[in-house]
Amino acid sequence: MIRTHDAGSLRATDAGTTVTLAGWVARRRDHGGVIFVDLRDGSGVVQVVLREEDAHALRNEYCVKVVGEVTRRPEGNENPELPTGEIEVTVAELEVLSEAAPLPLPVDDQVVAGDDVRLRYRYLDLRRGGPARAMRLRSRANQLARTVLHERDFLEIETPTLTRSTPEGARDFLVPVRLQPGSWYALPQSPQLFKQLLMVGGMERYYQIARCYRDEDFRADRQPEFTQLDIEMSFVTEDDVIDLGEAIVAALWSELADHEIPRPIPRITWHDAMARYGSDKPDLRYGVELTELTDYLRGTQFRVFAAAIDAGGYVGAVVMPGGASQTRKELDGWQDWAKARGAKGLAYVVLDAETGEARGPVAKNLSAEHLAGLADAVGAKPGDAIFFAAGAETRAAQELLGAARIEIARRAGLVDESAWAFCWVVDAPMFERTDEGGWTAVHHPFTSPNAEWMDRFEEAPDRALAYAYDIVCNGNEIGGGSIRIHRRDVQQRVFDLLGISPEEAQDKFGFLLEAFSYGPPPHGGIAFGWDRVCMLLAGADSIREVIAFPKTRGGFDPLTGAPTPITAQQRTEAGIDAKPKPPQPASHAGTAGPAAPVADPT
Amino acid sequence: MIRTHDAGSLRATDAGTTVTLAGWVARRRDHGGVIFVDLRDGSGVVQVVLREEDAHALRNEYCVKVVGEVTRRPEGNENPELPTGEIEVTVAELEVLSEAAPLPLPVDDQVVAGDDVRLRYRYLDLRRGGPARAMRLRSRANQLARTVLHERDFLEIETPTLTRSTPEGARDFLVPVRLQPGSWYALPQSPQLFKQLLMVGGMERYYQIARCYRDEDFRADRQPEFTQLDIEMSFVTEDDVIDLGEAIVAALWSELADHEIPRPIPRITWHDAMARYGSDKPDLRYGVELTELTDYLRGTQFRVFAAAIDAGGYVGAVVMPGGASQTRKELDGWQDWAKARGAKGLAYVVLDAETGEARGPVAKNLSAEHLAGLADAVGAKPGDAIFFAAGAETRAAQELLGAARIEIARRAGLVDESAWAFCWVVDAPMFERTDEGGWTAVHHPFTSPNAEWMDRFEEAPDRALAYAYDIVCNGNEIGGGSIRIHRRDVQQRVFDLLGISPEEAQDKFGFLLEAFSYGPPPHGGIAFGWDRVCMLLAGADSIREVIAFPKTRGGFDPLTGAPTPITAQQRTEAGIDAKPKPPQPASHAGTAGPAAPVADPT
Repeated sequence: MIRTHDAGSLRATDAGTTVTLAGWVARRRDHGGVIFVDLRDGSGVVQVVLREEDAHALRNEYCVKVVGEVTRRPEGNENPELPTGEIEVTVAELEVLSEAAPLPLPVDDQVVAGDDVRLRYRYLDLRRGGPARAMRLRSRANQLARTVLHERDFLEIETPTLTRSTPEGARDFLVPVRLQPGSWYALPQSPQLFKQLLMVGGMERYYQIARCYRDEDFRADRQPEFTQLDIEMSFVTEDDVIDLGEAIVAALWSELADHEIPRPIPRITWHDAMARYGSDKPDLRYGVELTELTDYLRGTQFRVFAAAIDAGGYVGAVVMPGGASQTRKELDGWQDWAKARGAKGLAYVVLDAETGEARGPVAKNLSAEHLAGLADAVGAKPGDAIFFAAGAETRAAQELLGAARIEIARRAGLVDESAWAFCWVVDAPMFERTDEGGWTAVHHPFTSPNAEWMDRFEEAPDRALAYAYDIVCNGNEIGGGSIRIHRRDVQQRVFDLLGISPEEAQDKFGFLLEAFSYGPPPHGGIAFGWDRVCMLLAGADSIREVIAFPKTRGGFDPLTGAPTPITAQQRTEAGIDAKPKPPQPASHAGTAGPAAPVADPT
Repeated sequence: MIRTHDAGSLRATDAGTTVTLAGWVARRRDHGGVIFVDLRDGSGVVQVVLREEDAHALRNEYCVKVVGEVTRRPEGNENPELPTGEIEVTVAELEVLSEAAPLPLPVDDQVVAGDDVRLRYRYLDLRRGGPARAMRLRSRANQLARTVLHERDFLEIETPTLTRSTPEGARDFLVPVRLQPGSWYALPQSPQLFKQLLMVGGMERYYQIARCYRDEDFRADRQPEFTQLDIEMSFVTEDDVIDLGEAIVAALWSELADHEIPRPIPRITWHDAMARYGSDKPDLRYGVELTELTDYLRGTQFRVFAAAIDAGGYVGAVVMPGGASQTRKELDGWQDWAKARGAKGLAYVVLDAETGEARGPVAKNLSAEHLAGLADAVGAKPGDAIFFAAGAETRAAQELLGAARIEIARRAGLVDESAWAFCWVVDAPMFERTDEGGWTAVHHPFTSPNAEWMDRFEEAPDRALAYAYDIVCNGNEIGGGSIRIHRRDVQQRVFDLLGISPEEAQDKFGFLLEAFSYGPPPHGGIAFGWDRVCMLLAGADSIREVIAFPKTRGGFDPLTGAPTPITAQQRTEAGIDAKPKPPQPASHAGTAGPAAPVADPT
């Protein structure tokens, strides 16, 4: 090592020692003939003292090596804020290892530049305290999760990333294959099919911190490549996977957030989550539950509510504590808020803080009887506001109230930002209607119905439940998984219901179906959105903060300038414009791909 | 868990216990009314005993659950070969979890099918002992390396895989970018540039088990995606990186190959390796060194040797112990062997086992004096054969002898297959001549010249040496790295020598050059070819044996059928045929890419 000591490790007990340090000039202060420099390395900062004539050229972020003696600072000059604050290093030799041009981005924890500048000069940004800590935290998170998994005999296994287009919702990123012109690999959206094949292969316990790819339109905080902690187990029930998931988050939060998660983590069914919180990823740091009023308001003359009730839909409400004190403008603001979400508006009633009398536009439309019992029905007190949603589609109305609930908590200051609230959302529905009137899988088509619905999900696909579970932290879905179908007959029935023809199934994942004809074990798993987990642990507000080199919207990398045009030669060589050979008869039932140039053993 | 016990864990002390097991039918033997089944799970095998009427339908690789009592086997029926051989499980309940169709690939450690069948049914192949052990070994290797690195405060950091085309020799795999039609990502050939940027960013100690991609023509045992253990450190010298590398391989071999590597691992300079072994990755499990004869044979009348010597080239020899006893056909075989390698032939002399007299085609052409001293000059004894190579190009002649050396060891049975021989090959040359008469970097253009050549590599580029090192095990290069250039002036001089124009440098890696203007630390690193390391540890003869789902030649995956043609809709959506917008003026000096749709903070 070029250095003998880490700058941040020096203490008063080192006084008298001659040390060699190497790091960056974090700050310099000139004091007539003497220059004080904060020297920073990966371990921290120490004050070094240089003669003016040696150090006059030093500027911020020069990389330097110094040799000098550790000395106690003169009395009164200690800096108790700094672990090295009792000492300084009096420099005898200074070597500039490399110079720094004027900085486009100050390396300073106070100043925060825009994301475009930070990412373009990410290597300077990473020298700042916060970003450096985020990288350290993520590395440690990996290590903690792996410890939990290795203690439980999991194998870390890598799965391919140059693979076959999969049918999981989003678009695939594609890669032309020069050696088979006209054919393309796809980058995997997840290792789902491969981890299931590993279970068929008897691996029993698999994990991988896996890079995944989805070519989606960029919404806030999406990256084209992202990371998941991917896990699969054989011979397990839902409880086994949930126990493992809890062990992982417990270890992470205990070590990295100084928080002991009470266990077992509460479980709530998907339907309860929707009914009580209007969300399948409820934020349980605060109460403010929804109340269904469909029965209570049955018979109302108010057209909006009556129409929803008559349609077999839903009317519900959520209470804003103290919401009656909002100004007219604030109450109008809720209408704009609702419209921005695509709703027609947000009906409300306010309860007079003194008398409890219900007022507001909806109050006029409700009967005296309905008004009289309303506060009790929804658990409101004088001074509160009650927001309503109604619709023929129960889920949409609940989701509007769920979003209002989050907004209420925000506006009313009900969120304890230091709190951690975890839950499992279980018993998710198997299917939901497509716009065309068919059915689609809520999770993926390999998700197992639960025992109750296994033999009869066709009878009521809208009510059939799956062994599917999500883990939620402070309103963020941080992981999810399911028990998979391992019986071929059940898989076939699911495909039938989803309208996936035998040909289509064969074409898309014939190899998985074929594998399932050779004694597949019961199995299930979970995947954690690792970027998001690390973001929460780091207290960051974007996954970009825990990614070393993230991309901006549109998938652009301000640092390298990727993506770029390619040359005509690259285009030709890669076979991008080659016509694929006409598909030859599938060589076996499992792969409908082109004829196989299989291994030549010479 | 569906099971209460692991099959392989049961012992005589468990007798009397009722257990639930789940696994696969590995073998069945019928004994009139009773059926014995070897039940296999991830932990091993146990014998279970079933009644004929319950079990008649069971076939190999059915997945089953059984409940039964552990009983001692009747005296004389124990199987000492099996850890569970003292007991068996008498089954009271049998549940078939899933059936297996007739197997295309027997799950048997003896029978070995062809690679195409094994990979097409990899999930059956992985149920076999060898492949399963290889997966376990690789997982453990990851864990051991990580332990060494975390003990030394390395951070695990993920780098992007959707990035910019890099100039590292091989072709890039390309990915069209739908959101920026006409622009393409490249999959990284290595994290080289990013790990250097992390050093500029002050991360100081980085590692990653990184997926890398090279679009090469498939040679034996190449995969389009492969894995390297990638490491970079700041403020280090070559010795620091070498020490770390030794700590990693020592931990791996100690734990996984039961071999304590003597340390320090010997170092040999690149020039010595070429001179003594004719290889930059010498197999040191045996001797058989090359001898240079250029001076010894100076003045010879033999045209072939004289031409090489006159051209300032090389004449050398390697001895095959006992090689004089080869038949004429065997000696002729060496000529075919040499021609298959592209050489004109392989001159030789054999020494009579009795008299030591030199015979053979070359002997006639050498003077009596040269013949008389030959055996001493090359260290040969009566009964040996001496093979020669000569050429104007020293390296080509040495490499021919180096290949002959390996072949000699093979044919003469000199290789101790149980031995492990490691070495570092250091002081590699910086540059080599291109066919066009210019210079190219032997490693990559960021490799630092060593102290001796730092200020004057232009004076003799062919002799300039780098701080570059490879670690070699049994003749396989398993890792390599270098100290990088961190001084911008040195980097510029290297580019100048390589004929990389400022524009080209700016276009290809302007962002790295720009980063180097902000106080880059001295840094260096190493990357281990992780597939090959695991292959050696597993005693396998192909990296495919330690990859869960490898591809065959041509990049074909017999299991999934990837790659495949894509649909016209995929083609259109992905923007494959879009014309890139004309490049706009680079937004800053570091990125010559297209105009940046940088983050929109709304």
